[in-house]
Amino acid sequence: MMKKNRKKKPFLKRKFNKGRSKSRRRNAKLKIIPLGGLNEVGKNMMVFEYGNDIIIVDMGFEFPSEDMLGIDYVIPDVNYLEKNKKRIRGVIITHGHLDHTGGIPYILPKLGFPPVFGTKLTMGFIKKKIDEFKLDKFAKLNVINPDKPLKLGAFLLNFFRVVHSIPDPIGVIIDTPAGKIVHTGDFKFDDSPAGRQKKADIHKMKALRSQNVLALFSDSTNALKKGATMSEAEVQKALEDVFKKVNGRLIISSFSSLIGRIQQIIDLAQKYNRKVFVSGKSMIDNIAIAVQLGYLHYPKGLVKDIRKYKKVKDEQTLILTTGSQGESVSALTRISNNLHKNIKIKKGDTIVLSASPIIGNEKAIASVINNLCILGATVIHHQLMDVHTSGHGHQDDLKRMINYVRPKYLVPVHGEYFMRQGHALLAQEECGIPEDRTILIQNGDVLVAQKGKLEVSKQKIETKYILIDGSGEGTIGSRVQVDREIMSLNGALIVLIFVSRKSKKLKGDPNVISRGFIYMHETEEITTEVSKAAAKAFKKIMKQNPGANRRDIKKYIKQSVDKFTNSKLERRPLIIPLIVEV
Amino acid sequence: MMKKNRKKKPFLKRKFNKGRSKSRRRNAKLKIIPLGGLNEVGKNMMVFEYGNDIIIVDMGFEFPSEDMLGIDYVIPDVNYLEKNKKRIRGVIITHGHLDHTGGIPYILPKLGFPPVFGTKLTMGFIKKKIDEFKLDKFAKLNVINPDKPLKLGAFLLNFFRVVHSIPDPIGVIIDTPAGKIVHTGDFKFDDSPAGRQKKADIHKMKALRSQNVLALFSDSTNALKKGATMSEAEVQKALEDVFKKVNGRLIISSFSSLIGRIQQIIDLAQKYNRKVFVSGKSMIDNIAIAVQLGYLHYPKGLVKDIRKYKKVKDEQTLILTTGSQGESVSALTRISNNLHKNIKIKKGDTIVLSASPIIGNEKAIASVINNLCILGATVIHHQLMDVHTSGHGHQDDLKRMINYVRPKYLVPVHGEYFMRQGHALLAQEECGIPEDRTILIQNGDVLVAQKGKLEVSKQKIETKYILIDGSGEGTIGSRVQVDREIMSLNGALIVLIFVSRKSKKLKGDPNVISRGFIYMHETEEITTEVSKAAAKAFKKIMKQNPGANRRDIKKYIKQSVDKFTNSKLERRPLIIPLIVEV
Repeated sequence: MMKKNRKKKPFLKRKFNKGRSKSRRRNAKLKIIPLGGLNEVGKNMMVFEYGNDIIIVDMGFEFPSEDMLGIDYVIPDVNYLEKNKKRIRGVIITHGHLDHTGGIPYILPKLGFPPVFGTKLTMGFIKKKIDEFKLDKFAKLNVINPDKPLKLGAFLLNFFRVVHSIPDPIGVIIDTPAGKIVHTGDFKFDDSPAGRQKKADIHKMKALRSQNVLALFSDSTNALKKGATMSEAEVQKALEDVFKKVNGRLIISSFSSLIGRIQQIIDLAQKYNRKVFVSGKSMIDNIAIAVQLGYLHYPKGLVKDIRKYKKVKDEQTLILTTGSQGESVSALTRISNNLHKNIKIKKGDTIVLSASPIIGNEKAIASVINNLCILGATVIHHQLMDVHTSGHGHQDDLKRMINYVRPKYLVPVHGEYFMRQGHALLAQEECGIPEDRTILIQNGDVLVAQKGKLEVSKQKIETKYILIDGSGEGTIGSRVQVDREIMSLNGALIVLIFVSRKSKKLKGDPNVISRGFIYMHETEEITTEVSKAAAKAFKKIMKQNPGANRRDIKKYIKQSVDKFTNSKLERRPLIIPLIVEV
Repeated sequence: MMKKNRKKKPFLKRKFNKGRSKSRRRNAKLKIIPLGGLNEVGKNMMVFEYGNDIIIVDMGFEFPSEDMLGIDYVIPDVNYLEKNKKRIRGVIITHGHLDHTGGIPYILPKLGFPPVFGTKLTMGFIKKKIDEFKLDKFAKLNVINPDKPLKLGAFLLNFFRVVHSIPDPIGVIIDTPAGKIVHTGDFKFDDSPAGRQKKADIHKMKALRSQNVLALFSDSTNALKKGATMSEAEVQKALEDVFKKVNGRLIISSFSSLIGRIQQIIDLAQKYNRKVFVSGKSMIDNIAIAVQLGYLHYPKGLVKDIRKYKKVKDEQTLILTTGSQGESVSALTRISNNLHKNIKIKKGDTIVLSASPIIGNEKAIASVINNLCILGATVIHHQLMDVHTSGHGHQDDLKRMINYVRPKYLVPVHGEYFMRQGHALLAQEECGIPEDRTILIQNGDVLVAQKGKLEVSKQKIETKYILIDGSGEGTIGSRVQVDREIMSLNGALIVLIFVSRKSKKLKGDPNVISRGFIYMHETEEITTEVSKAAAKAFKKIMKQNPGANRRDIKKYIKQSVDKFTNSKLERRPLIIPLIVEV
């Protein structure tokens, strides 16, 4: 069950600092360890360690890159935390996106279910996942009020609301005897956030200026993008233009967590007299959670599940769907392939992609757009109209944050190295932060805050890529991954060798079975040749080394067949020799 | 050997038309069949068929998409042409890019080596490939002078120079008794093309206006991009800015066929006193061809192979390299992974990516940029400075072409459907071509020109994706591809079942061998369970159907094991049952 986090006595920050002796504070040592989020946009996880206490900010996962064959997700390596799980006082989640929450159901059990804290909607999304994983009896989920402090061991936490592409996001102010750290979470500035969302706590950010913030850990995703992030008000205008102009059926695809955008779209539907039909599991789920928790509002009867799609006039129809990233299993992809149960595209339909491509998805998205056009639809996307804006601050937003907080050090987080490097350069060139106070670290580095200084320690924590594969877990470079890679390129070649139990001599020709190797019309001749090569290899090693064990024999046959296929066919399938005594 | 195409008598177009009776011309029928290039940017190939004569424009290949596992290239399906190869009079290649030439060594042999025609540099690049494939004794390669007409069967061909991102590109004017067709090839307009290239034959394009062009087949790649394509003169300026500012080592990566850009860069190197070292096989090869044929000029000693890289001062060093698309085997990728023999990145190095990402390559490029930054380099790319411009015309260029030629019909070619649709809309909205005269076709459609009309016929030519895989060829959806897909995701599970030759009963437990299936620590328990499931299935089918043949038995075991792994592990590896009689 989820429970409100109630404190009996409001916790006073000053008291906290006063309660420690000066000398103790002077030697106070805070360790900060990113376990994820710094070699990627994804799997964010930052550890703060002071004395006997550990807190964690965010617990995300990452979608696998193309070379991680058959992998569902990648999560941070928490081996270090498993060894120290008794010291973990809590997990703070800055907002409900999967790159900040997706690791929770995989990682919480490894850490003995430390309590998790987040704002109402954030915890609503997390609870849904926890229930799906049947962990609701173990997980300790706590809703926080971002205007109230939270004490976890030696850490005093305060929060400030930011604006992002999901409602209810927060930044975290972490007070420790070794100094004050501010972690922005993901943010941008927008004075007109979409869909009745709360505004950012600018006053809290400005107040930090006089509080000697030791280090600002700040979102770097858009550090290379110039100017300020476009306001949602612009998107609102562009979307309204679409509603005004389009007479036929309107289909809008966006991110299912972009509740503010969804509110905008539903409001426009109401204004322009269209019924809303929702397609895509995550969109349906998230809308239900947001409505239940009071983050999404509409009159009864306006919004329906697409499965209840009945004959409404085209000009009165709005379909809201997932799939803006061209995901192969999404509703929009099914629509574009003419495989959706309820929606068949026809001439006159207009599709709006109210999203921009996440890097790596460009080709899949182009293919969806193409297929929709072939079916007769008109497609509007962010390159044609301002129907989307990012949730991450551009350069002007990042400068604004630095200038509000005025930290001694800037630690760019959230993003690939080149994005974080861009953030550091921006701070140096435009905010006057000296180069030696912009700190670029990698996953597994250990930052130490002590005596008003922040330094990268020599200690390193190992951070492997932990691959989630169905119900299993593995690591990159493991045999399983390498074998999949080989088989994906050149298939497998099974060489079944029959050996007489008595004479230990070859009995008959080796059988060769191939899968994914070569095309039918080439097969017969080649399998015969492979069989001969294997037989020859067997005889040769048995002659050279009559006492060879099974492993040696297999290895030699494998090498010989590999040599043959490589020189003869320029192909290197996975060769699997099997020896059967008959 | 390559030979110049010499005509004894210049061929006069008027004579050509005069020589036919009016009635014959009236029923004259021209078929136009795109075998590739219309569902993709790649594998361009267009067939023109009149009476007993066939000509082909371009013969490209395409790089495989991610789901074509282990595939090297995709070429057009020329089954239709193989059946009609005796009627092929020639192949015209518009320019030397691989999406227009890459299919040649694979397809020419299937078609009985019809003669190939192209401009000098185009044929220079083709000859290199033909030599590599050891086809030089068979291929008939002809260099054309674009100012001279060429007669091939019933077709009279004239040419006009265009500007593109490779020197020596042409458009083709095809005169037939059924009408005049203009095929632009790939083009843009640029009054200051890079590196001393020849300008476009604007006068020839303008002259077409009064020649009753029936149809214009025009490049659609950038039909959704507004304005005019940026001039190479702008790129020149941006690159010169880089040369002026950078004091350390300079590394520039670009396309190896972008000879004009390469000339610009070499000229700048000379001006700013840097020696040029070239890395990457295709870059070295193409520079050699371009120099030999007179398309690239520099003083002796200025340009050297990177293998001759010796201590030159950093500020006097320019390295020119391939790899601007993040290709895994390219020089720049090796440099970024610190695996290049001659170049180790250090602080102070500046890398310029003088290219923009081809769709689908974004993630690989970001990874290369990231790694270079981690090594300490500064990276400049097209998002930061105008260090690249496309070779394909933006909307203003496309309108300019339409307005020069004033065709009756526009057939947008070269690109995905949505790009070609954009081109059609542009022609309708901004050039006054009626909707029914902008024709959108797909690969395998048959366009018929007759009596001054151009119509899509009901006839369809099958155009499969022909996959080049090492020395073999296959098609999409073939068993090989499906098996590779399954194994890439979940590996393979070999179930080796021993059956008594006499009793036909199971002998011992089935052996289970897995590859790429599950991670080590899970394996033992699961293979035991799979073995049990297979044994159970064998017994069951033998009981139900004692006369079952080997195929039935295997099929049943496969289904049973699949059911087990799917329900128990949510995984569906490729199951390979093998029955051995002992």
